[in-house]
This record gives sequence, C-alpha cells and structure tokens, in this order.
Amino acid sequence: MTTGFFTRTEPIRYEGPNTGEPLAFRWYDPERIVAGRTMREHLRFAVCYWHSFTWPGGDPFGGATFDRPWFSDSLDAARAKADVAFEMFRLLDAPFFTFHDRDIAPEGATLADSNRNVREIADLLGRKMEESGIRLLWGTANLFSNRRFMAGASTNPDPELFAYAAAQVKNAMDVTHELGGQNYVLWGGREGYETLLNTDLAREIEQYGRFLTLVAEHKAKIGFEGQLLIEPKPQEPTKHQYDYDVSTIYGTLKRFGLENEYRVNIEQNHAILAGHSFEHEIAMAAALGIFGSIDINRGDYQSGWDTDQFAMNVPELTLAMYEILKAGGFEQGGLNFDAKIRRQSIDPDDLLHAHVTSMDAIARALLAAAELLEDGTLSRAVEERYAGWNGDIGRDILGGRMSLDDLARHVGDKALDPQPRSGRQEYLEGVVNRFF
Amino acid sequence: MTTGFFTRTEPIRYEGPNTGEPLAFRWYDPERIVAGRTMREHLRFAVCYWHSFTWPGGDPFGGATFDRPWFSDSLDAARAKADVAFEMFRLLDAPFFTFHDRDIAPEGATLADSNRNVREIADLLGRKMEESGIRLLWGTANLFSNRRFMAGASTNPDPELFAYAAAQVKNAMDVTHELGGQNYVLWGGREGYETLLNTDLAREIEQYGRFLTLVAEHKAKIGFEGQLLIEPKPQEPTKHQYDYDVSTIYGTLKRFGLENEYRVNIEQNHAILAGHSFEHEIAMAAALGIFGSIDINRGDYQSGWDTDQFAMNVPELTLAMYEILKAGGFEQGGLNFDAKIRRQSIDPDDLLHAHVTSMDAIARALLAAAELLEDGTLSRAVEERYAGWNGDIGRDILGGRMSLDDLARHVGDKALDPQPRSGRQEYLEGVVNRFF
Amino acid sequence: MTTGFFTRTEPIRYEGPNTGEPLAFRWYDPERIVAGRTMREHLRFAVCYWHSFTWPGGDPFGGATFDRPWFSDSLDAARAKADVAFEMFRLLDAPFFTFHDRDIAPEGATLADSNRNVREIADLLGRKMEESGIRLLWGTANLFSNRRFMAGASTNPDPELFAYAAAQVKNAMDVTHELGGQNYVLWGGREGYETLLNTDLAREIEQYGRFLTLVAEHKAKIGFEGQLLIEPKPQEPTKHQYDYDVSTIYGTLKRFGLENEYRVNIEQNHAILAGHSFEHEIAMAAALGIFGSIDINRGDYQSGWDTDQFAMNVPELTLAMYEILKAGGFEQGGLNFDAKIRRQSIDPDDLLHAHVTSMDAIARALLAAAELLEDGTLSRAVEERYAGWNGDIGRDILGGRMSLDDLARHVGDKALDPQPRSGRQEYLEGVVNRFF
Amino acid sequence: MTTGFFTRTEPIRYEGPNTGEPLAFRWYDPERIVAGRTMREHLRFAVCYWHSFTWPGGDPFGGATFDRPWFSDSLDAARAKADVAFEMFRLLDAPFFTFHDRDIAPEGATLADSNRNVREIADLLGRKMEESGIRLLWGTANLFSNRRFMAGASTNPDPELFAYAAAQVKNAMDVTHELGGQNYVLWGGREGYETLLNTDLAREIEQYGRFLTLVAEHKAKIGFEGQLLIEPKPQEPTKHQYDYDVSTIYGTLKRFGLENEYRVNIEQNHAILAGHSFEHEIAMAAALGIFGSIDINRGDYQSGWDTDQFAMNVPELTLAMYEILKAGGFEQGGLNFDAKIRRQSIDPDDLLHAHVTSMDAIARALLAAAELLEDGTLSRAVEERYAGWNGDIGRDILGGRMSLDDLARHVGDKALDPQPRSGRQEYLEGVVNRFF
Repeated sequence: MTTGFFTRTEPIRYEGPNTGEPLAFRWYDPERIVAGRTMREHLRFAVCYWHSFTWPGGDPFGGATFDRPWFSDSLDAARAKADVAFEMFRLLDAPFFTFHDRDIAPEGATLADSNRNVREIADLLGRKMEESGIRLLWGTANLFSNRRFMAGASTNPDPELFAYAAAQVKNAMDVTHELGGQNYVLWGGREGYETLLNTDLAREIEQYGRFLTLVAEHKAKIGFEGQLLIEPKPQEPTKHQYDYDVSTIYGTLKRFGLENEYRVNIEQNHAILAGHSFEHEIAMAAALGIFGSIDINRGDYQSGWDTDQFAMNVPELTLAMYEILKAGGFEQGGLNFDAKIRRQSIDPDDLLHAHVTSMDAIARALLAAAELLEDGTLSRAVEERYAGWNGDIGRDILGGRMSLDDLARHVGDKALDPQPRSGRQEYLEGVVNRFF
Repeated sequence: MTTGFFTRTEPIRYEGPNTGEPLAFRWYDPERIVAGRTMREHLRFAVCYWHSFTWPGGDPFGGATFDRPWFSDSLDAARAKADVAFEMFRLLDAPFFTFHDRDIAPEGATLADSNRNVREIADLLGRKMEESGIRLLWGTANLFSNRRFMAGASTNPDPELFAYAAAQVKNAMDVTHELGGQNYVLWGGREGYETLLNTDLAREIEQYGRFLTLVAEHKAKIGFEGQLLIEPKPQEPTKHQYDYDVSTIYGTLKRFGLENEYRVNIEQNHAILAGHSFEHEIAMAAALGIFGSIDINRGDYQSGWDTDQFAMNVPELTLAMYEILKAGGFEQGGLNFDAKIRRQSIDPDDLLHAHVTSMDAIARALLAAAELLEDGTLSRAVEERYAGWNGDIGRDILGGRMSLDDLARHVGDKALDPQPRSGRQEYLEGVVNRFF
Repeated sequence: MTTGFFTRTEPIRYEGPNTGEPLAFRWYDPERIVAGRTMREHLRFAVCYWHSFTWPGGDPFGGATFDRPWFSDSLDAARAKADVAFEMFRLLDAPFFTFHDRDIAPEGATLADSNRNVREIADLLGRKMEESGIRLLWGTANLFSNRRFMAGASTNPDPELFAYAAAQVKNAMDVTHELGGQNYVLWGGREGYETLLNTDLAREIEQYGRFLTLVAEHKAKIGFEGQLLIEPKPQEPTKHQYDYDVSTIYGTLKRFGLENEYRVNIEQNHAILAGHSFEHEIAMAAALGIFGSIDINRGDYQSGWDTDQFAMNVPELTLAMYEILKAGGFEQGGLNFDAKIRRQSIDPDDLLHAHVTSMDAIARALLAAAELLEDGTLSRAVEERYAGWNGDIGRDILGGRMSLDDLARHVGDKALDPQPRSGRQEYLEGVVNRFF
Repeated sequence: MTTGFFTRTEPIRYEGPNTGEPLAFRWYDPERIVAGRTMREHLRFAVCYWHSFTWPGGDPFGGATFDRPWFSDSLDAARAKADVAFEMFRLLDAPFFTFHDRDIAPEGATLADSNRNVREIADLLGRKMEESGIRLLWGTANLFSNRRFMAGASTNPDPELFAYAAAQVKNAMDVTHELGGQNYVLWGGREGYETLLNTDLAREIEQYGRFLTLVAEHKAKIGFEGQLLIEPKPQEPTKHQYDYDVSTIYGTLKRFGLENEYRVNIEQNHAILAGHSFEHEIAMAAALGIFGSIDINRGDYQSGWDTDQFAMNVPELTLAMYEILKAGGFEQGGLNFDAKIRRQSIDPDDLLHAHVTSMDAIARALLAAAELLEDGTLSRAVEERYAGWNGDIGRDILGGRMSLDDLARHVGDKALDPQPRSGRQEYLEGVVNRFF
C-alpha cells in the first residue's frame, strides 16, 4: 500500500553506471564491501524530515511553492506526513532519518500540549520504525522558529525562556532516547546576537555553557547512550552565532569542561559560510577529537547564505570522505541529508531525484577515497614530508626536552640553515584525480 | 637636527577642530583627561616600523613605488632608517613603536650574523629611546618573509626549521626584553596550510602548542614582564591559518593549558577577513579574559585581502573604543598602527598625514565612547534587558541548582509562556549616534 | 484622530542636537536651506509600505514576530493598514511614500480581482494624499512573491506568465500614473536563474529586453511623466539576477536602445552584495547618465544577504550624498527607506525610532557633503590631479587627433619618462573627516 | 639537446588512465577526435610565460621561493629563459604560448631601449617557433608592474602616461602581429581606482574608451587579423577595476561603439572574484556575442584574492566546456594556462606536473561535455521548458506585436492563471553527473 504521493512504488535499486533508468542507483550499492564495511555501514544515510516534508518552499522574497496535502497544523496531517516520509525512506532504502520536534507534530497552545503532540506522533514513528527497520540517526528540538526564541534560547535575556527551552529539550531528548536515536543534536541558530549594542556577550556565553552542562547531565540521568552533537554555523539567522565553527565550539567545550561530552555535526554549507572548506572542518574536528557526524549538503559558492543544496560534486566529496575515513569513519554519526530541493523543484519525484543523485555522488566519493587510502601514494607523501620529526631533534622538541635556549644553541652549534623542500601540491592533486 | 626626509621639522600639535593647518591634531590632545586618564595614556599609540619604513609599496602585480634612501641591505642603511623612524615618532608625538627583527636590521649569511645585526641596531634604538622617551610597545620575529619559512615556522614539516625559528624568537624576545618592551607578539602568518593534501594538521597543531609553551617558559626564565600576544588572522598568506580568530586562539590556549600565558593582539582587518566585526573580536576577547592589544587599521569591505589601511571611520572606531573601555582599557597593550599608506602615496609627508588623520579619528572615537559610557543610557538598556537573571529562577539556573527535569517541571507548573520583548536595535543605534 | 498604534500622536519635530527627547530630529530640519534648497527638497524622503507595514518579521529560520492588527487578507485590513501608514508618514513629516501593488491590497482569486482591489485601495490612498499633501515617490508591481513567478516574470519559460506579468505591470503603472507618482520602478528579483542547467540565458535576456521596451512604450502611451527606474541587485532571491549592478544595467539598456528611457534606483545593500561601495554605484550611474533614485538602507558587512537595515553611518552616507550632490541632486528621484526594522524590534515605536535616527544621520551627511563641496579642497585636488589633460597632448588624445603611431613617435621624440605623483589618499580622507 | 632544467627530456605522452607513470597524459590524447575535431584543435592549450618563467614565488608576506638560473635582468638571461620555456612547451606538447612584453625581455633605461629588447627576444622566439611549430596564442603589454603605472595606464591622471602606454602597446601589438599571434589581449589591472576621493571616474572611462578605439584602429592599420581581447576582472590590484566582468565590458564596448572590435578573455578566478560562476561568464559572453578566449585556472573559494591555481575539478570544468562547445568552441581563442604553481612547489618538475594534471582534467571535461551535448537529454529538457515561446503568443510578444494593453486584455479575456512547472534542477544535476 502506498500513499500515491510519488510516481514510484518500488524501492530504488542499484543498477550500475550504465542503466538507462533515471531513478536508479548508479554507484550506491548498499551491500558492496568497501574498506571492510558495506557501503550502507560506511555512509549511514539519513533523510531529514525538515527540508523534505516540512519546508514549504519559501524564500525571503516569496511564499510557498510546494503543494503538499499535509500542510496543515492538525495531528491527522502529521500522520499523513509520516506516511509519506516513511514511504520515501523505503523508496530510497535509507537506513536512518532525523527530525526536529516541531517537524513531526504541530505546536499546541501550551508547551504541555506541544509535548503531547510530539509524543503521540513519536509513538507512531516508533511503530513505523519497527515495521520498516528504519532507525533514528538523531532528534533535536526546534528552538528557533517560534517568535519566542527570536532573542535566543539558552542565551535569551529572559531566564524564563531558558527554562522553556530546557523543558522543550528535555522532551525532545526523552523522545529521541525512547526511539533509540543514535545522537541528539543542538543547533543554536538563535544562540548569538544581532547587535552588540543590546547584548551582554559574556553573560550569554555563560548561559550557554550552563545549558550545555544541563543537557549532558540529563543524558547521563536518563541513560541515553547516543552522542551529543553541536552543529557549527557562523551566522544566519543571527548576525553572529556562538557556535561559529569547529574550533570555536572546541574552545567553548574546553571552557566548560565538556570536551568529552559533545562532538560536532559538521555541515558543508556552514563550513564555507565560516570561510573554511568542508574537509578542513572534518580534519580539524578529528584533530581535536570531536568529530561526530555530518549534515551533508552543499552551499553555492557565489551565495552568501545557507542554500542547503544537495551535494553533487564528486571531487569535493572525495576529499571529505577521505578525511572521514582517515578519522576512522562514523561510529554513531552518519550522513544526514540536511539539504533541500530548490523551491522550483515542485514535483514530488524531485525529492527522489535529489536524494538518489546525491547518494550516488557520495558513493563514488567513498569509493575514490577508499582507493586513495588503500593506494597509499598520498598518505606516504605526507609521512615522508614530516619524517624528520621521527629523528632525534624532532622527538626531543615534542618531548619537551629542549628549551628555546637549547634550540638556539643547537642552531648555532650546527650552523643550521634548513632548506625548504617542494610542497608538491599540483602533483598531489594529480594523484587524487586518478581515483575517480 | 633633522634628516630632511619630511617637509616638517616641528612636532605636530593639537590645534583644535577649526585649525586651517593640515598637519595638526584636531581632536587628539594628548594631555586632555578623558574618563580619568589622559588621551595619551588611554590610546598608547605605537608606530610600526614595518609598514612605514620597510615596505616598498609593492603589490601582487607591481613592484616598489616608494623611493626611500635607506632601501638597501647594509647596517648603515638600517641606521639611516632608524634616524627617520625616530624623527617621525617625534613629529607625531607617538609614545611607542613596534618592530620585527628583520625590519630594523638586515638579514646576515647565518642566523648568528642576523642576530648580531639585530643586536647592533637594537643598541642604537635603545639609545634613541633613552634620548627621546619613546618606548617599545612590542617586538616580534619575522618568521614569514624568508623562503625558509614557506611551509611554516613552528608548524614546519622539518624540525630543524622549528629549531631555527625558536632560535630566532629567542633573540627577538631577549632584545625586546632588554629594550623594555611591554609585550612580545607572535603572528603566525605561515602557521597554517596551503592544501590539506600535503598537511598533517593534527601534528602541526601539536608542534604549534609546543612552540607556544617554549615561548612562555622562556619568558619566565628571562624574567620578561611583558605580555605575550598572539595575533588572530584567518588566512593570507596561507589558505588557512591556525590562529583563525579570537575564539580559535582561545581553544588552542585552553588545549595547551596556556590561557593565562597569552592574550590576543586584535586587528580590524583580520577580524573582518574572519567574518567578524572589529568590536566583536574585542568583546569576545574580553569575555574570554584574553584581551591584550590592538593593531589598529581598517580593511576595505569590498576587498578580500589584508589592505591594512589607516582607520578613519569614527562611528566604527567608537564601537571598538567602547568595547575597549568596557574591558577596562589597555594595561600593557596599546594601539599599534599596523597600517600602511597606499602605494600611490609616495610623498614622505603622506606618512604624517595618514597617522595624524587616523589618530584624530581614534581620539574622536575615544571621546564619543567615554561619553557614551558616562551617559549610561546604552549600558542601562542592556542591564534592564537581562534584569530577569537577577531574579530567583535566573540565579538558580546559573547557580547549577536546576536540572532539565526541574526546569521542565517549573515550566509546566507555572504554565510558562514567556513573551518576547523588543530588542530596540534602531533606538540604541540612535543613542550611539548622539555621541559623535 | 489617531489610530492609537503609536504611543506618539504629534509629528516629530526638529529640536536640535542637544534635545533630551528621544523622538525628535536632531539634524533633520526640513526647512533649513542647504546649498540652495531646503533639506526637504534635497532629501525627498519616502517611507516604503512593504518593510514597514507588510513584512511580518520572518527570516529563513523563523516566522512572524510582528503582531499587527491589519495582518489579514481583507480589504478592511488594507484600509486599516493605510490609516496607520498615513499616520506614520504624518508623524515623520515624510513628504513621500512608495508601494508595490500587493503591499496595499490583497491578492484576489484572479488578476482582475487583484487589480480591482489595488484600484480600490489606491482610491483611498489618493484621498489620503490629497488631505495630507503626502506624495507618491514611486509605485511598482510585486512580480516575485507569488509562486507563479518562481521562475521569473518577463524571463519566465512560459510566455503566458510574461503576459500575466505585463498585465499586472500595466495596472500598477496606471495606478501610479493616476496617483501622480514621480517614478515607476522595476525590481527584477526573479529575473535571473537558479542554475544554468535549465536556463536559456540568451533567450531570457531577449525576453527581458522586450518587456523593458513594452513598459517604455506604455509610459509614452499613457503620458506618464514619471521616470522609469530599474533597481540593480546581483542576486537573492535568485542565484544570478540579470540586473547585477549599475554597469550591467547600462549594457542591457544600450543593447535594447533604452538608455534614454530608464535610470537606476540604487540601493546600498545591493551595491555591497555586488562587490561595490554605495558611492561607487552612484558615481558610476552619474558617469553613465542614468542616475535616478536611491533606496536608502545599509547592509551588514559581515552578512552575505540583504539585511536592509536602516542607514546610520554618517561618514559612509556623506560619501554617498557627496556623489549625489556632484551629480546635481535628485530631479524626480528621492531617498526611499527600503529598510526594515530588525525582527526583534517588535514595538510599534521602533518604526519611528528607526526612521528618525536614519533621517538624522542622512541629514548630517547632507550637511557634511554640502560643506565639503562648498569648501572645494577635495574637488580642487581632483582637478589638479588631472590638469594635464587640459594641455595640448591631453586634448589631442581625447579629440581623436593622435593614433598609436603618433603617440609612439611623441614618446620617442620627447624621450618621455612620466613620473608618478602621490595619490594623497590619506590626506584626502583627512579632508573629508573635517566635515562631520 | 636539453637545458637540463627538468628531469625529463622526452615529451610527455598519452598513456591512458591506467598508466603507472606520473608524468603521462591519462586523458589528453591530442589526436583523438571528439565532436568532429581533435582534442588539440578543441583545447588549443597555451602555456603562459609570466607565471611559469617570470614569477619568483613571492606573496604579500614573503619573497622569492623559486631559484631559477635566468632570474636576472640581462638579455642573456632572457635567452636562457626562452630556451627553458620552449623546452617545456615541447615536453608538454603545447601548441601555443602567450607572453607580456616584459616577460620575455628586460626593461631598459628608456622605452626605446625596452622596445629594442622586446624585439630582439621576439626575433629569437620567432626562430624557435619556426623550428618547433609552436604558435603564439596572444601577446600583451605589461602596463601594471612598473611604478609609472601605479595610477593607471590609459586611465592615468597624466596624459603623458597615456602616451607612454600607447607607445608600449603599439610595440607589443606589432611584435604580436609579426609573430603571427592569434589574439592580442588587454588586461587593465591598473585601469580602475583605489579611492573615489582622488578619482574622476567619468573622465577616466572616457580616456579608456579612447584607448580602446586607438588599439582597434591600429589593428586595422597594420592588418592584424588576430582577435582583440579584454580580460574581465573586478579588482586586485585596484580596489575597483573598470573591466569588472563580462557584462560591464559589454556596456563599455557598446558605449564606445566597439562591440564588434573586441571580445573577452575570461578567467575562472576573475569570474568568482566578481561573484559569478565560471560557466556564467562564458554563457553571458556567448549570449552577448563577445566570447573570445579563456585564461584557464581556478581560484580558491575560501580566498578573496587571485590565487591562480591550476584547474583540477572535472565537474566544474565540464560545465565550462559545455558552455564553450554550445558557443561553437574556440575560433581564434584557446585555453591559456594563466595559472601558477604554488610558491612551495619549488622543484622544476612541479611545473610539468601542474600542467599535465590540469590538461588531463580539462580533457576529461571536454569528453564529458561532448558526450553530454551529443546525448541531448540536457539540451532537450531546456528546449521543452521554453517550448511555449514557439507558440502564437510567444512569437507575438517577441515579434513586437503585443503592447502592455494587448497583453492585459489577453490575460483578462482568457482569465489566464499560468501554473508553474518544476525546474527539475536536481534531476538535471544527476544527468550531468552521468557523463564523467
């Protein structure tokens, strides 16, 4: 039984690169073994509720373009939405999904009502998960759409709003826990400021630290074994967001002693808005020991806002997958499609084309990255470049056995005049290009 | 006796806003008391050697435009340069100056030779400082111009280069110490990467942490009482620089346990390249307890590189000075003119016009900021906005006496539905505009 | 009789810089003569309907924050909105206003219904204009909010949509004409593309040229004596907008032989999104003979989208006013507040504070620019810089009397080796800073 | 006989994707026929003298990193440089090269001396061209490096400098003509301004128009049959450059009646600095009838300056090649490697790796684009999208047979309510992804 929303009723299958069928996987072959795991296990794809089923297609200069039968505020509509969502998960053979509390159920007159609505639909989702085997990658609370959050959630000037946000998060965490969510995410889109003129920045960061601590304590209390994730983003909707990028979040976590409690959920579009490449943010998170999960999408390099397009560029994705594999791959994280079809893509099947094409591009990137890693030309070049650090002087320096004075003496005694060696960037770019 | 380099021989004086003399201070009145200190004490202006006396006026598409008699590599030229530099300090009535080791003295065939050159000219500078009363705001080592540093100093793949850099820094620190420098600065322009393909990012950050630790230890060893400063910059010359911005540096310091050893030297142009406003970076540094000093300049908002122009925009400077005053003003830091005249400004007097105009703009900003602070309308508005946090629930939250469960109960029991209040941004912008 | 929407019932008055009253003009003194005209005549302020009365305060991540009694789709609500709008025009002593057809009246089931609604409310506005003396700076048609325009208006792949847009524009032009509008504006927010993959760019530009021609012909036909204006904007909502900037529009106009039919309506925020300074776009339009009018606002230099904030920075505004005065000031154009209060500014009076503060900042800029022009130091410096062009060789070159061969001979014969002269940028920046 | 500069002495050959040889073409097979031409004929690769043989590896914070035996100012050095250049052209099997006058020969004490030097080396190049069969894609004059050009060449405030530039261009054009150059390029890196405060923008654009006219007249006079090209660039080194982008240049050409005399030489890095995608600029130039040639390179999307890296991203290059093929491919233009190896790539062979890898990436892009075009799925989707314009109403609109009134009547009579159709962006992105 299908909802009739999509033209397609059968799951999309791997048919290889040469198939003539538009809605087929050309590269994503879920059971294919790559570097010791199946593609499904490596990629842990999740479909997000928000962009695909809740967003109406508006932009700052225009209203809804999508015409979805479930666009109303009733619980019945929420159920109809869930039916289509799970149908799409099935058609895509997606192992995971993700949601905000407000995506799945309508807001009520009071928080208690809203929470009840969330619970009721969560129960429905739970049943659907059991039937289908589809799992929850993460849940989260929407602390940004309602006007009450306009000046922040935990960083709000009003402590009652902090309390309100806390209560909403508690419910979302509990629901995520009950549904077996593998992670719980915090996206602080309103945790920032529009103008310093009305903002006590120092105080707000203290409030934020308190909130993060409460969430970590609640996780322990309820025995949630999922990973807590914070999502870096520099700005938009706020002028400045406290979770600017991976390095900034690391500093915040260290400050509040939470570096072992949280990891980061990195998004390509947020990375580039912060002035970083996608692979940089992954590499930095790995270096700092806080790599968690990925919101997979792409930003438009000519647009200064969050376009959240589906990721399609294989060479760029290869560099990201290479860093993920080097970091050991995902543990509890995965690749969440925090991506939206363009507002002009108004046919239901556009949702399928978008996911399938991006899953294929990512699968190609995984294959290329795995081969690149196995080949070893690239990693050996890096090892050789730093080989000197395995020598005496290198080990003495890093081992803390040389002071500035010692080093100055060493340079003088040996009349050191170290000569630069080629960084070989273009050669290495050529090596990468061989693999896809 | 003057060098004859400038058309002017007498120090530039405060003559008030209505003077007809181009080379006069209209607003900077060094002895005027503002908020309990003289303007001189507040602003602690420093002239930098680099941009004003060493830079030849080149850009990526053109060579030298400045024709300075001291542009050669001899020690005699270095002495001639020092004569003009101190003449300019005197003409501007600047209390401080700053330098890189390579600015003041030519590089020799070996590091030992180079160090000797630095020492020799430093001795000369010391005598000139004594005669003139001009002091050293900070010294630093140039670890970026020579090709040996092309792949980094402390983060170089070659440990011998790390040693070389350490030896050079030791000398620069020692010289700074001997000259009574109030700070020692690290600018890591090469501490970053061009491509991740040839970079072990995790390893390089470890190396960097080691270097910072060594510098802090050397400071203690020699009894240097100046402040150690790191200068945030996101990129240029490297694609990615590890000292991306204030928050990133904070994370690095926390990671290596150095948050009490270093502070930041913030530059407007670097702030905006990292996607922040100037005042943001100051406010963030203050909130994190690491505000140190300022490289005062301005970037062109339409250019994506470090234009290092002289700061002239009074309203923007007012917001920066307001944050500095709120943070308690400078202790050992100051306002260093890390600014360069345009390469078309080839007349010697252009150097004077640039400094005088910017000093005046900053002085106006100081006056406006001090009045804004004294007036209190702005700060009261902020206090009132957060007043709720002084109530019971606010104090309980921040005091760690409420869990998520407690807060959820509190919201439910009181049926809390907190209502947003106006952020009044435009009104507050109007308040600020009254003060200059 | 007032609507009671604002706390204030009496028009805001000029009270001078030292007044203690927040809602007073400190600098904008409408009847003060500056450079031969009153301030009112110079500035020709217009309040826009859209941002101030129609926008609900949403952003890409949040819904309405403003709670306005007229937020519904009935004609009665449109009348209530008009009452408040004219009350605000009166309180601000604004001589002009501007609107889109969809701002003033609700959309109907058919275009005929919509047009009727527009006519009905336009009649009401006409009566209010007569009573109050407030005039229409410009009208325009909203060809971007409704989903029918998602792929463009005149550049739509569907010619029926072109026809629809034409019909809507005809009505908006006719209404503007009847209300005595001084200009008619085209803002092509959807005239561009999201992806070249589905776009026939050459064809779309042809369609656009046709549309512009039809509008110019209609103007002639109905005897509309207002100015036709096109508004440059590089992107947002579309990835690429055909009206990228002033220079691009000039090329389009030349291509279709329309350079005498249209002028440009320049906006600061659009200028900076296109990589230009505000004053650049004004100067370029003046140089190309197409300067028309201004949408006065400011973008946030750290945000890559259209923030449309109220303009507050006096030095920046001074440079813009200086270019406007040099271009001869406004003829039919004016300063339209295409600016919106922040979505957190939810008090009705925030609308007043925003306009008053920005009007004051602009008035200060006008005063500064007029004094700068009268003083003549700046303009004389420019004239002297180019003085050589008034000599023989300069006139021969521009007069077309020298070929490359002639010039080569001239250089050889005279052994010319022209020497650069200082551009004196910092000195000139200092000159400007004396005037505000 | 080889110079011994490279480790390699034999030309690099096509060996197919699976070769183990680093210095081999994997995709560029010069004689392979693609869409009716050989790859060599399609791509018309040119190596540029400037980046590869003249640039010393400096950046704004560091000096030379490359150690080339010919780095001195003598004619002998220029000859040695030419030997290595032609050796590299041969090793790469590059059919074309390009140069600035100052790249090939040292500047003399007077323009006459400089011109003599250029002639002398040009004669040498001519002999080498004859021997090797390598041709000149284009020549150009360096009107930006010497300080005399700091304030512009044709747009200089000094008419004598205009004359000087004219004389230099005459010589460069004559030499290009004699060497059989297929194009002559103008890159106006100094034709712009640093600050409007010292600039008469309107006057400078007039000067520029005169210069362009003189160049076109000289072309006719000497019978040069090459194409005249202008290179769009928005800024850097100047704050604003008059040749901002393709559309701006079109407007300038129309203004001076030169639209049939000049075409554009488009560069990826300049495109993205102007806020456009590479393929946008190509498509726009084709739509405006001024597509000429390509400077093939890539900018770093995280850097706000001209990084001029070698182009390596196959999907991006595919979109560019697709637009080039749709525009009919190159006539006299070609793909000039205006790209530089990173300054850390200090080994001579890095030059070979860079070119080979980029040539291969471009060859893959050509293959993909040609297949995409032949397949026709993409182009058919576009044709179908606009099919309505082939109907009656579409033809009547574009044929100028419908006024606004007619269209309004048509909409009313038919009660038109045109419905949007999906733009299918994601599906089309998937189609493209099938072809490489």
